[in-house]
Amino acid sequence: MKINEHYLELEDSYLFSTVARKQREYQQAHPEKKVIRLSIGDVTLPLAPVVIKAMEDAVKEMGSKATFRGYGPEQGYDFLREAVQAYYQGHGVSLDVDEIFISDGAKSDLGNLLDIFSLDNTVMIPNPVYPVYQDTNIMLGRQVIYAEAGEENGFLPLPDPAVKADIVYLCSPNNPTGAVYSREQLAAWVDYAKKNDAVILYDAAYECFIRDDETPHSIFEIEGAKECAIEVCSFSKTAGFTGTRCGYTVVPMALVSGGTPLNHLWLRRQTTKFNGVPYIVQRGAAAVFTEEGQMQVREAVDYYRENAKIMVDGMKKMGIWFTGGVNSPYIWMKCPGGRTSWEFFDYLLENAGVVGTPGSGFGRNGEGYFRLTAFGDQAETREAMERMIALLS
Amino acid sequence: MKINEHYLELEDSYLFSTVARKQREYQQAHPEKKVIRLSIGDVTLPLAPVVIKAMEDAVKEMGSKATFRGYGPEQGYDFLREAVQAYYQGHGVSLDVDEIFISDGAKSDLGNLLDIFSLDNTVMIPNPVYPVYQDTNIMLGRQVIYAEAGEENGFLPLPDPAVKADIVYLCSPNNPTGAVYSREQLAAWVDYAKKNDAVILYDAAYECFIRDDETPHSIFEIEGAKECAIEVCSFSKTAGFTGTRCGYTVVPMALVSGGTPLNHLWLRRQTTKFNGVPYIVQRGAAAVFTEEGQMQVREAVDYYRENAKIMVDGMKKMGIWFTGGVNSPYIWMKCPGGRTSWEFFDYLLENAGVVGTPGSGFGRNGEGYFRLTAFGDQAETREAMERMIALLS
Repeated sequence: MKINEHYLELEDSYLFSTVARKQREYQQAHPEKKVIRLSIGDVTLPLAPVVIKAMEDAVKEMGSKATFRGYGPEQGYDFLREAVQAYYQGHGVSLDVDEIFISDGAKSDLGNLLDIFSLDNTVMIPNPVYPVYQDTNIMLGRQVIYAEAGEENGFLPLPDPAVKADIVYLCSPNNPTGAVYSREQLAAWVDYAKKNDAVILYDAAYECFIRDDETPHSIFEIEGAKECAIEVCSFSKTAGFTGTRCGYTVVPMALVSGGTPLNHLWLRRQTTKFNGVPYIVQRGAAAVFTEEGQMQVREAVDYYRENAKIMVDGMKKMGIWFTGGVNSPYIWMKCPGGRTSWEFFDYLLENAGVVGTPGSGFGRNGEGYFRLTAFGDQAETREAMERMIALLS
Repeated sequence: MKINEHYLELEDSYLFSTVARKQREYQQAHPEKKVIRLSIGDVTLPLAPVVIKAMEDAVKEMGSKATFRGYGPEQGYDFLREAVQAYYQGHGVSLDVDEIFISDGAKSDLGNLLDIFSLDNTVMIPNPVYPVYQDTNIMLGRQVIYAEAGEENGFLPLPDPAVKADIVYLCSPNNPTGAVYSREQLAAWVDYAKKNDAVILYDAAYECFIRDDETPHSIFEIEGAKECAIEVCSFSKTAGFTGTRCGYTVVPMALVSGGTPLNHLWLRRQTTKFNGVPYIVQRGAAAVFTEEGQMQVREAVDYYRENAKIMVDGMKKMGIWFTGGVNSPYIWMKCPGGRTSWEFFDYLLENAGVVGTPGSGFGRNGEGYFRLTAFGDQAETREAMERMIALLS
């Protein structure tokens, strides 16, 4: 047999393993120093009490013949799809339950969605961005072009009418830059997609960090988006589900190509290649949307948002250029002193005992930048900022 | 954008929806009749007490900051991979932990594994068989050829040296036929694969039904199989995880193509397109491998095996040709009176109130055959057999 040769074109990803190795080596050389990690995009607060209660109940159900659940619908139980539907309605977006697919997380669906598109589509990916978009397309041998992000556009690239793409990835609030598209900017992308018969794959995994009234939580708040966009969302950052695994993807019925609703293709893909999310997990996810659940997860997000604010204040004090930190758990800062991303990583670790993520790991336009995350402990985040201010002011 | 046109080549799958509709219509017309379903391949017994206890404990861990788990390793936690490793050792198969990947079930992996192979491989699929093998390959536009199964080979096709395939699917104990390959037959397939530089995708989802000492539980019990096979297994039928979602896939390091270990490709695929199985579920799955867990899940499998025996005895009494039912939860019977699969379905429903699955739904060689499953209630299974004996003897 022959292997898929496109896998050999992938660059080995050493970003987080190198970060971990350098941290470990530093700690071994300086056992007395307390290293603070603001590097990883993983949550640290536990699941909300309503989620725990719902999962405890569901586990009990699975232990009794009368309430046991076997195979569920691949696209998710209606109790959860209806809860997602009501959540969207809260943002003014009306969806049919059949437009909502429950998944085991945004990462899976962002890659798997590519299955339903022709291999000869051209894909546009922001640079820098979450590396999964690029890697999943390289694996399929697709042509990838970039939407160039940088300081000049606030790391929020807008469509270039002269460039033709068939599939466009957008991520807002953005990982890694924390930049968030406004309603007008998203409208420009929807307009581009409709003019070019392109589809937008909209990654809204961080939407719960948005707290102002003007910024859209969903691309479907933009008129016409249902005819050109698929939205992928997750409970990972909203409700601390990074190790519990649940998300949802919206494929509107109005999104049609050559007479075929993409919704039907995705349904066929999911019923053929996926067997649904654990019943127990879906019960936990549904609890997130109860009134009590919304209060509890909001409290956790508030905690992370306060961390972000501590970092924003620190950046302003140091006079360092940055984006993010508002409506987002990420701070994307320019490396002081003209350092490269890795030079600044080493400098910060050695002189302040703070670990972040080199921006160059997210694409070439990330070189010279650095990502800090708001998912850490609050006292440690405060201490990290004090150390950085002492070092860099 | 253009869609993946291969999706339009898929036949719509009406098998189980038509079965359900006909059953519903019959019940509405005859509300006084008790219909017995022996049609669906889903378990009915609850999860084992040790599994429930392990998941309850894990849910508690997720509710406390000190014990909370965020992102885990995509390929699964070592505590579960090591338990799988020990289980294989029990069948005399030595594996490295790195050869074991925890998944959300056999269905996902059987489809996703195709990602790592070139599109121009020729695929050989038994006929009849679990339809997912064929559909996932049609979705990719791959050339599919068939290993013809029938009464003459006991629905256990052997390799034809004149036919060249690159990827070969085997499923043993088989769904839908219940037929099980012997050691010698599997050795013939391993020999074929090695001679043809082919890879065997071995679906062992029903291995726990095997109880005699001669029949291999794993293809890796065959010498040389590590150089030519990937094995996909599941907790669905072993431990009632159809709604809890966990499985495991073994990609041996010795399986190499053009110098590239397929294990590395699969690791790259999984780390890029998957984010692991819920921690809670992995704890539940690990409990299956404890001494107590093995006793408890064996009890459930014994219950289903007894159902199978009741059906085997019934078939013998009626003098109907069948395969399966030994080392397998499926009975694959020839439709009496030369009826087609759907003719017999209607006849059995109308005259005995028993629902099965038409064999033609699993491929053209399934025409004229019928599948009954052992996953039902025991008293109902007994009653169904009595009704069939009364009708068909």
